[in-house]
Amino acid sequence: MSRSRTNSGAGELLVELRRDGPVPLHQQLEGGIRERIRQGLLRSDTVMPSTRALANDLGLSRGVVVEAYQQLVAEGYLVSRTGGYTQVAPAAARTPLADEARTQSTGPPKIDFKYSRPDVSQFPRAAWLRSIRRVLNETPHLSFAYLDGRGADELRVALADYLNRVRGTSARAEDMLICNGFAQGSRLLLQVLAASGFRRLAIEDPSDNELRDVAAAAGLESVGIPVLESGLDVEALARSGADVVLVTAAHQFPTGAVTSAETRAALVAWAAERDALIIEDDYDAEYRYDREPIGAMQGLAPDRVVYAGTASKTLAPGLRLGWLILPGRLVEPMAAAKIVDDRGSAVLDQLTFADFVARGEFDRHLRRMRPRYRRLRDLLVERLGERLPDFEPIGVSAGLHVMVWLPPDLSESAVTRAALERGLGVYGLQPYWVGGSGPEGLVFGYGGLTEREVAEGIDLLADAISSLRG
Amino acid sequence: MSRSRTNSGAGELLVELRRDGPVPLHQQLEGGIRERIRQGLLRSDTVMPSTRALANDLGLSRGVVVEAYQQLVAEGYLVSRTGGYTQVAPAAARTPLADEARTQSTGPPKIDFKYSRPDVSQFPRAAWLRSIRRVLNETPHLSFAYLDGRGADELRVALADYLNRVRGTSARAEDMLICNGFAQGSRLLLQVLAASGFRRLAIEDPSDNELRDVAAAAGLESVGIPVLESGLDVEALARSGADVVLVTAAHQFPTGAVTSAETRAALVAWAAERDALIIEDDYDAEYRYDREPIGAMQGLAPDRVVYAGTASKTLAPGLRLGWLILPGRLVEPMAAAKIVDDRGSAVLDQLTFADFVARGEFDRHLRRMRPRYRRLRDLLVERLGERLPDFEPIGVSAGLHVMVWLPPDLSESAVTRAALERGLGVYGLQPYWVGGSGPEGLVFGYGGLTEREVAEGIDLLADAISSLRG
Repeated sequence: MSRSRTNSGAGELLVELRRDGPVPLHQQLEGGIRERIRQGLLRSDTVMPSTRALANDLGLSRGVVVEAYQQLVAEGYLVSRTGGYTQVAPAAARTPLADEARTQSTGPPKIDFKYSRPDVSQFPRAAWLRSIRRVLNETPHLSFAYLDGRGADELRVALADYLNRVRGTSARAEDMLICNGFAQGSRLLLQVLAASGFRRLAIEDPSDNELRDVAAAAGLESVGIPVLESGLDVEALARSGADVVLVTAAHQFPTGAVTSAETRAALVAWAAERDALIIEDDYDAEYRYDREPIGAMQGLAPDRVVYAGTASKTLAPGLRLGWLILPGRLVEPMAAAKIVDDRGSAVLDQLTFADFVARGEFDRHLRRMRPRYRRLRDLLVERLGERLPDFEPIGVSAGLHVMVWLPPDLSESAVTRAALERGLGVYGLQPYWVGGSGPEGLVFGYGGLTEREVAEGIDLLADAISSLRG
Repeated sequence: MSRSRTNSGAGELLVELRRDGPVPLHQQLEGGIRERIRQGLLRSDTVMPSTRALANDLGLSRGVVVEAYQQLVAEGYLVSRTGGYTQVAPAAARTPLADEARTQSTGPPKIDFKYSRPDVSQFPRAAWLRSIRRVLNETPHLSFAYLDGRGADELRVALADYLNRVRGTSARAEDMLICNGFAQGSRLLLQVLAASGFRRLAIEDPSDNELRDVAAAAGLESVGIPVLESGLDVEALARSGADVVLVTAAHQFPTGAVTSAETRAALVAWAAERDALIIEDDYDAEYRYDREPIGAMQGLAPDRVVYAGTASKTLAPGLRLGWLILPGRLVEPMAAAKIVDDRGSAVLDQLTFADFVARGEFDRHLRRMRPRYRRLRDLLVERLGERLPDFEPIGVSAGLHVMVWLPPDLSESAVTRAALERGLGVYGLQPYWVGGSGPEGLVFGYGGLTEREVAEGIDLLADAISSLRG
């Protein structure tokens, strides 16, 4: 601690002095510093500016500052150090954040199957640092100025290349838009669609529930359409009156179904006939374990499909990097909406990710992660089969989650409660049903767990179930 | 080029094959690759996967892939290289973005006084790299997972320390919220205020014009209040019926006025009496050249003032880093709004900036930049005085812009047009008047220019003016 996290920026210590007032200057200075320390605004161990520098900056004689410091040392607010500098005393300052953090960290589950955290311990720190070093060494100055609403050229080129190669998309760099993850991208898209006259969004039932509020806030109705084993029920979609539909075609969330070639064709035909739009949320398609992933629907109908991708599942959610491939007519309104929203995404992250993708580091990371996640998934399914053979896992071997149907004698609420009593977090399917309820099941996220945790977790669950079954 | 920007991710080349179809597999593979090259989806110089790897991944015999590659080499789509690898041929691929970039780069002004670009050539790349290296070496894995809506603890602590020390604020880390620049922060704030019953936003007249649309989109009326030499006309504010006001108290944009102590006190009294809120946009207060900057109003009334800061003027707009200090009651709704908006700001940038601030690099950068900007400003004002003595600069010696009133014989439109004919960008005051028009003037942004450009720019302007005056 001590010197390293502090700062002796002379004169930056802002104390406003009244030179024509009745209170001596050294007392005003003392009072100002004392008050800041009391309020915790100057924290423990902060190195104070030198008396010379502070005197200089405040236009005071050095003696005034020396006197103020001496008084505060005498009062215990400051400590005079042998190196010739003065620090805020340890006991004098508050550390409210640390206290708060302590009280908040009580009682999360010991093993947590909550969905949506990839294995962030595998974040490729060294390769990322190499990329950012190259960017900081090589990128022109103007990259640091305000941005194009679509994002950095370099990243749009790199991602278009990558997606066309790996996901079978038909992307041109100029039709791509970089956003802060799927959350921002989908919100802006629904806002732009609502403003262009779209009215009703069809979503998969069951599906991730967060988009419904976003659609409502944008002024769109939303309607749930059943998901079959081959993907969305397109006949129900056609009857729904929707003019835009969101699908997770490569790997449905949460059921794990893959949209069949016939259903894809039917979706595209529906969109063409109704002059409608398809949003393809390709959130985890890079992680298919049993075969090459099915190519994106966007490649079939680039003018009817908005493709949405994200680094949140493949690399880390904390990067907040997402991307859209847009039909040409949506590029300008989306770029304008992005500028209004936040003036564009942070440039260093974009350029770093561009370098990371263009040099093949992204492919390398995916190649490294696939067998790890596959082992976790295989272990989870195998252990479930051994310990809870009447739990029925569904969906293809892919992604970072597995869904199971619950046997009829068990309820989600009883299971999740009994699990939590054993320090285990498991999560029910109910929040994903568009109508608020439906058949009961569990969704296991395993991306952030170790093999040992997966095995122990299923053992704990088996314990919990046998207690429920008496 | 060649190998470095390409990728030989074997098997990532997605070609869907029909094993039961009438077309031989090598022809299907050829056709798939050929089509991707034709459409520009596989770009020039892309390194193809090795035949072994591709065969392996597609479940084909190697001979099938060799046959397909040979055919495409014969047709000129691929090139076989001496290192034993195969690349997409240079002539075969499109480069649409490069073409587009060429046509777009016609005719910007040679010297541009457009406001709002700091000197990005001075971005402290080496210090930033040191900070990000430390972050990547030291930060715990979980930092890469999803975030707190308020932002990373480390950055909130570092910024609270910095702002309390340098800007005289009264900030606790837990009341801070990190956002993607002022654009996002102010938008979220106005949305949250509108949702909590606020109705009418008072803004300075003249002022930055972008906030009015944001306020309207959030459902708030906005009303302009005249700016006097001592800051906002508080009597007019009291008559306006506003329940929230946005001020640039330390350095009004664009007039450069500084809000006096009396006006600050009157604003705080107004807010207390009306149960109203003050938003303090402290966009460039670190750059005061004639004295220490006036402390932030937030320190006077932390419960009535939302403080907004940004790295866009002090470091670089491309970072998209901004921060708010919030009255306690606004912290939870704002954090929730941030999560809905984009799930939180990118974590690596936050942690890097936290390290950068905590180690005093931010202070060092500001100390280095202040004399540079001061020289630019002094030169601009001096040159104006020599060449155009009847142009009247106003405002204090601060920031990255100067405003001047135009003499009555000149109009903004004539001046800006005559300047542009000489390759000079100058900008009128009209867009900043809340009513759409008002007294005529010019706003010079000088942050991104060199001394030579400033001098030449004023000379060109003097030329333009003398041509107008005959």
